Amino acid sequence: MQPINLAAKLAQFSTHWDPHVVAGYNDNEVMVVKFQGEFPFHLHEDTDDFFLVLEGEMAMDLENESHPVKTGELFIVPKGVTHRPRAERECKVLLIEPKGEPNTGDPATAAPKPRI
Amino acid sequence: MQPINLAAKLAQFSTHWDPHVVAGYNDNEVMVVKFQGEFPFHLHEDTDDFFLVLEGEMAMDLENESHPVKTGELFIVPKGVTHRPRAERECKVLLIEPKGEPNTGDPATAAPKPRI
Repeated sequence: MQPINLAAKLAQFSTHWDPHVVAGYNDNEVMVVKFQGEFPFHLHEDTDDFFLVLEGEMAMDLENESHPVKTGELFIVPKGVTHRPRAERECKVLLIEPKGEPNTGDPATAAPKPRI
Repeated sequence: MQPINLAAKLAQFSTHWDPHVVAGYNDNEVMVVKFQGEFPFHLHEDTDDFFLVLEGEMAMDLENESHPVKTGELFIVPKGVTHRPRAERECKVLLIEPKGEPNTGDPATAAPKPRI
């Protein structure tokens, strides 16, 4: 049991769309991730998707709308809703998903989510 | 589905130890709360307890140790572990607990957790 400094964890990697697990909360993985560019549209059939912007700005594109999400803002995508995170410039995000949930919604294309 | 600005939510109340629900994530409530002073020692028998410091600094006191938790730091108290959040000066925190979980671990003494 130790405090986890999110900026220090984010400084350990430079890749984009590459979530790194920093803690567990019940059956969820708490991750930090850097976004830049466009992620594919996808959905999670069985879970909501939790995004908190720690630094920078992202857009959350939905099928018929798009929302800017700025530093200090939270966006929760309900389960089953198609979405695409996007960021013109690098954006640092706290992400929460259930353990083992593929970040793309599809195990075939998912990132490995290493623990740091 | 809208971005949720945590600072704007925190500006809506001034009470301490009074968590306000700003969103749901699966079976959890995502809350903002202001800490100042000492909360009672307590534990949650069936859930981890998620704290992310948004502004200021708190201490997480455990039975035999105490950890400072600063802005941008996360502290997760595992289920069953006795703990006491404490803050000399006002500290703003993002808190996640399962829906209906009493913030004191005991329904008899719990805060109501209004939605804002």
